[in-house]
Amino acid sequence: MGTAFAGDDSAAAIADVKFIIDNLWILISAALVFIMHLGFASVEAGMCQRKNTVNIMFKNVFIVCIGAVGYMLWGFNAMYPGWEEAAGNFFAMGSPIESGFEGAAATANLTKEYADYTYWSDFVFQAMFAATAATIVSGAVAERVKLTSFMIFAAILVTFIYPITGSWEWGGGWLNGFGGENSAETGQFIDFAGSSLVHAFGGFAALACVIVLGPRLGKYTKNGIKPILPSNLPLANIGVFLLFLGWFGFNGGSVLSADAAGVSHVFVTTAMAGFAGGLAAIALSWILTKKPDLSMALNGMLAGLVSITAGAGSIPPFYALAAGAVGGVLVVLAVGFFDKIKIDDPVGAISVHGVCGIWGTLAVAIFGSEALAGEKISFSAQLIGTLSISAFAFITSFIVFYAIKLVMGVRVDEQEEHEGLDVAEHGVPAYNDSAN
Amino acid sequence: MGTAFAGDDSAAAIADVKFIIDNLWILISAALVFIMHLGFASVEAGMCQRKNTVNIMFKNVFIVCIGAVGYMLWGFNAMYPGWEEAAGNFFAMGSPIESGFEGAAATANLTKEYADYTYWSDFVFQAMFAATAATIVSGAVAERVKLTSFMIFAAILVTFIYPITGSWEWGGGWLNGFGGENSAETGQFIDFAGSSLVHAFGGFAALACVIVLGPRLGKYTKNGIKPILPSNLPLANIGVFLLFLGWFGFNGGSVLSADAAGVSHVFVTTAMAGFAGGLAAIALSWILTKKPDLSMALNGMLAGLVSITAGAGSIPPFYALAAGAVGGVLVVLAVGFFDKIKIDDPVGAISVHGVCGIWGTLAVAIFGSEALAGEKISFSAQLIGTLSISAFAFITSFIVFYAIKLVMGVRVDEQEEHEGLDVAEHGVPAYNDSAN
Amino acid sequence: MGTAFAGDDSAAAIADVKFIIDNLWILISAALVFIMHLGFASVEAGMCQRKNTVNIMFKNVFIVCIGAVGYMLWGFNAMYPGWEEAAGNFFAMGSPIESGFEGAAATANLTKEYADYTYWSDFVFQAMFAATAATIVSGAVAERVKLTSFMIFAAILVTFIYPITGSWEWGGGWLNGFGGENSAETGQFIDFAGSSLVHAFGGFAALACVIVLGPRLGKYTKNGIKPILPSNLPLANIGVFLLFLGWFGFNGGSVLSADAAGVSHVFVTTAMAGFAGGLAAIALSWILTKKPDLSMALNGMLAGLVSITAGAGSIPPFYALAAGAVGGVLVVLAVGFFDKIKIDDPVGAISVHGVCGIWGTLAVAIFGSEALAGEKISFSAQLIGTLSISAFAFITSFIVFYAIKLVMGVRVDEQEEHEGLDVAEHGVPAYNDSAN
Repeated sequence: MGTAFAGDDSAAAIADVKFIIDNLWILISAALVFIMHLGFASVEAGMCQRKNTVNIMFKNVFIVCIGAVGYMLWGFNAMYPGWEEAAGNFFAMGSPIESGFEGAAATANLTKEYADYTYWSDFVFQAMFAATAATIVSGAVAERVKLTSFMIFAAILVTFIYPITGSWEWGGGWLNGFGGENSAETGQFIDFAGSSLVHAFGGFAALACVIVLGPRLGKYTKNGIKPILPSNLPLANIGVFLLFLGWFGFNGGSVLSADAAGVSHVFVTTAMAGFAGGLAAIALSWILTKKPDLSMALNGMLAGLVSITAGAGSIPPFYALAAGAVGGVLVVLAVGFFDKIKIDDPVGAISVHGVCGIWGTLAVAIFGSEALAGEKISFSAQLIGTLSISAFAFITSFIVFYAIKLVMGVRVDEQEEHEGLDVAEHGVPAYNDSAN
Repeated sequence: MGTAFAGDDSAAAIADVKFIIDNLWILISAALVFIMHLGFASVEAGMCQRKNTVNIMFKNVFIVCIGAVGYMLWGFNAMYPGWEEAAGNFFAMGSPIESGFEGAAATANLTKEYADYTYWSDFVFQAMFAATAATIVSGAVAERVKLTSFMIFAAILVTFIYPITGSWEWGGGWLNGFGGENSAETGQFIDFAGSSLVHAFGGFAALACVIVLGPRLGKYTKNGIKPILPSNLPLANIGVFLLFLGWFGFNGGSVLSADAAGVSHVFVTTAMAGFAGGLAAIALSWILTKKPDLSMALNGMLAGLVSITAGAGSIPPFYALAAGAVGGVLVVLAVGFFDKIKIDDPVGAISVHGVCGIWGTLAVAIFGSEALAGEKISFSAQLIGTLSISAFAFITSFIVFYAIKLVMGVRVDEQEEHEGLDVAEHGVPAYNDSAN
Repeated sequence: MGTAFAGDDSAAAIADVKFIIDNLWILISAALVFIMHLGFASVEAGMCQRKNTVNIMFKNVFIVCIGAVGYMLWGFNAMYPGWEEAAGNFFAMGSPIESGFEGAAATANLTKEYADYTYWSDFVFQAMFAATAATIVSGAVAERVKLTSFMIFAAILVTFIYPITGSWEWGGGWLNGFGGENSAETGQFIDFAGSSLVHAFGGFAALACVIVLGPRLGKYTKNGIKPILPSNLPLANIGVFLLFLGWFGFNGGSVLSADAAGVSHVFVTTAMAGFAGGLAAIALSWILTKKPDLSMALNGMLAGLVSITAGAGSIPPFYALAAGAVGGVLVVLAVGFFDKIKIDDPVGAISVHGVCGIWGTLAVAIFGSEALAGEKISFSAQLIGTLSISAFAFITSFIVFYAIKLVMGVRVDEQEEHEGLDVAEHGVPAYNDSAN
């Protein structure tokens, strides 16, 4: 009996240590996702015009701040309402996080009784995720959106709308239970780290806003499309590499433990899809424009990363190359397509996140291994899931942003747009070259 | 008996594995704190004028290098002299780190006999911390300080002065033993990761230097305060986000282990205080100046982070929001105040680190949970502690910097200041736009 | 017997947990090495002329993408062919990584049967390393190399040539078995994280390319050497600090486990050598040029880091200071020397990586502790090893790059070089200051 106790004690102690590692990895992942916000700010500022740089960074700083606070006060509990799985749920009310005043979450929430990580780790990792969805919109509406209108929209999007679709899958809602009792046979929706729930969501919210907002002045003329040059490509380069770095936490942390096989597989698929996306976009854009195009190379890497986000855990490494490469091709074509139909997206956010978000979700059905996924994979579940999420993001964003347009307008006036938002709205240029 | 041995062996093996994780987290935290030096360099260079950019970065590179070397040769042992607690100690001699030539610290220093981390981890984490105090000064004296004078001052500050106040609390000196035998009843000084020991220390050292140095030429005129515009706000934005990232190691590593409940709590309080500081500074500065002010938003995030640094382990999450928000308000008011009394601080370092460092230390007494802190909390201990540290930093810095002024001067001549320090002192501009 | 089983079960469970930590550290290190690619891109772009910035970043994006893909398809297996040690092997054929289509490497490859980390972790960490060698060349040939020619060269270098010298030591080839049966007495070649295998390799490949390519137009005139000013020193500063950060993974991950004593020792030696290199380069360049030189301070930090890379595990901390400081001196002298003999290296890559790579390898024999290294250290083994690797890199690079020169040329035409590669080849400037 002494023996049995010794064994039990050891097992508990070992589980405690494993819990510490798993939890630490979720926290490190949260820090990596945090730095994606600097990535977004830098890539957007670098890709847009010099005169709107301060405005872009201000929006990004505001979004990450309000996003996390809104998520603390409402979103986290709206997204993870504790539904029983497969209950077909669609919407839950939010509320402030538990025990926020007490100094400690309920005891069990800080031990492995809660999960492989603590309640606080769960919250902080998810909060860093949440704000990315609104940030995606920020790039698409840059250079002409009215600041206060966007701030209101972004706060609503991240606090109230994003958790709804999030709850459908990660919160145990109808998509997670898709297929009902037969889901073991029919297959369930799989979105590992959010090709649909984060990226397509953000991309189609962005599309709605751009339609409501209209293109930048002088972009589409009767003489054709006027190219608007990026103001600072080294800044955009910094942004994209930081996003890539952060993706190791975005996808890697979504293993929800430090499991060696799981996290190492996700690192390989994530990295290789990003690299393949870069190469494919370089090749295709070179063929089409006869130029080696840095912006497309950078967007290609991002496209590859978005394309593997749903399947990072279930797509084998060589197929991750393929999924990423298709993403790199799609982003080049989509950027051209949206310009042709006069959807003006200064940074290509709709193409990178929206189009490749859908593609990445479908790629699970094409390239995914059921042995890796640990469940049945179904093309129809992937298609229904990604279209539902994208459509919900598009429709609700359209309604909310259009309502804001009716109430207070969503666009700066012509003179401000010409002058640039930095001086007009913020009273200060981003770069001051004079000697003072 | 075989059973007992098996249990003991397992327990030792489990403790070894836990030791590996705890140690790894301290090292990762050291790397995160290291990147704060890039954060400081970038935010200072971005906030100052273009013509002094090289000078600022040169100072920062020098400080992190000399800071770590000085800490290796003197500071670490001066700060952690192995005092018995509560002995009322005030000052210890430094000396080079142990076993630095032997290839290995004494055997026990590399095992869990030493702590939850090795002697080398302890040293490297603390060394990365040390240089931050001097770096805070660098921003406040920018654009007119004489390079060699500052280099001498910074080397003295980080090597000899910072370890003294550090030893008071973290080294087991008089502040750590404050309250003597009755400390369980009266409460001890609590400064989790250094709102006082690092930030207020740096901020009040900066205040002393700015008083000795005087304002930049032409800043305060009879016609009022001349605004001097930041040269590169995307660079400042990069700097602030990297500082925020590094703070997860600064505060998170100060748990001194990878304890799941501890580190996850610290991540939540740190992040939320930073975000709340950003929102509060945005709101207040918008009300006061009628402009959405990016510089204030960025300084607000830093202010929130400084404000939670003393209480990251003991303040519950929702109170962390409050502590950070107050920090964001304070920084806006303090920047205005110091400008009004003609204390010229180009980057707001005195406000961010000095004022919010004191506030953060007091916030422990207002918002801290004794259950979390694991000890009695006392307002008077917090007040006495933060004022002692701030006063010591101010007085010693004033004396040392004034002595340097008498011996060799501390300020560049007028022509150099007009021309800019980059070309005048370094012979090269930071940005060269010509085609060559 | 129940007792024995309990012990065995615990031991296996403890080993599993240790495996998870070790594996996690390799993955985090891979992420840190990844960010070095942003470091290289930023330091090169910052140090070169504004007009060639896009070109430099495009090359860097391409290299990291093609490098990882080439390593996946050929290099990894060519570098780690599973030779029996000491077999005197020189070359192995490459092949695609194992199980890349199957969704899982063979079961044992994802457990501690493979190593302290999984097969995927091994691959992704080594893949991030691989591309750094080619990136080193990128800086040296900047501002006049023909893009497509360089792309072909870089792809060949990283995919086919780098794994050959890599296999000599890390793959268990002739250098690893150097000394044969008597190696315990005579000493084996020691290159902890690649002072020779990565840095000297890259540096001497760069030297070969610069000789084939020739200097930038107008650099060496009959009136002396024309200084070409860096375009963006804050960008270079960002780059160097990110490289320094990444080095904690580059060297720290090369412990190949999270061993507490090992990784903490490596962190201390790596950091202190980098800081000492910075201080030494500051001091010497100040003496020689009478100016505090930021570029030299930055290159000095990198030189210190390269100088400790071979001996990070075996050189005691105070000797790491010495090794780094010598590196800082060498880089100042080498940059002057190469300019004198008209080897035009815009970023000092040959000096930093080539010269200090050899120095760092020899420093193991001068400063290394056999107790730490765990094996006999031999000056002749270090010398033969580093010269073999450097010579192989130089000769093969010369042949390949010369062949490319004969077939398609390696240099842009004069007009493009004057105009700058950004507009001439890429059709877009890096910075666009106009208001559009």
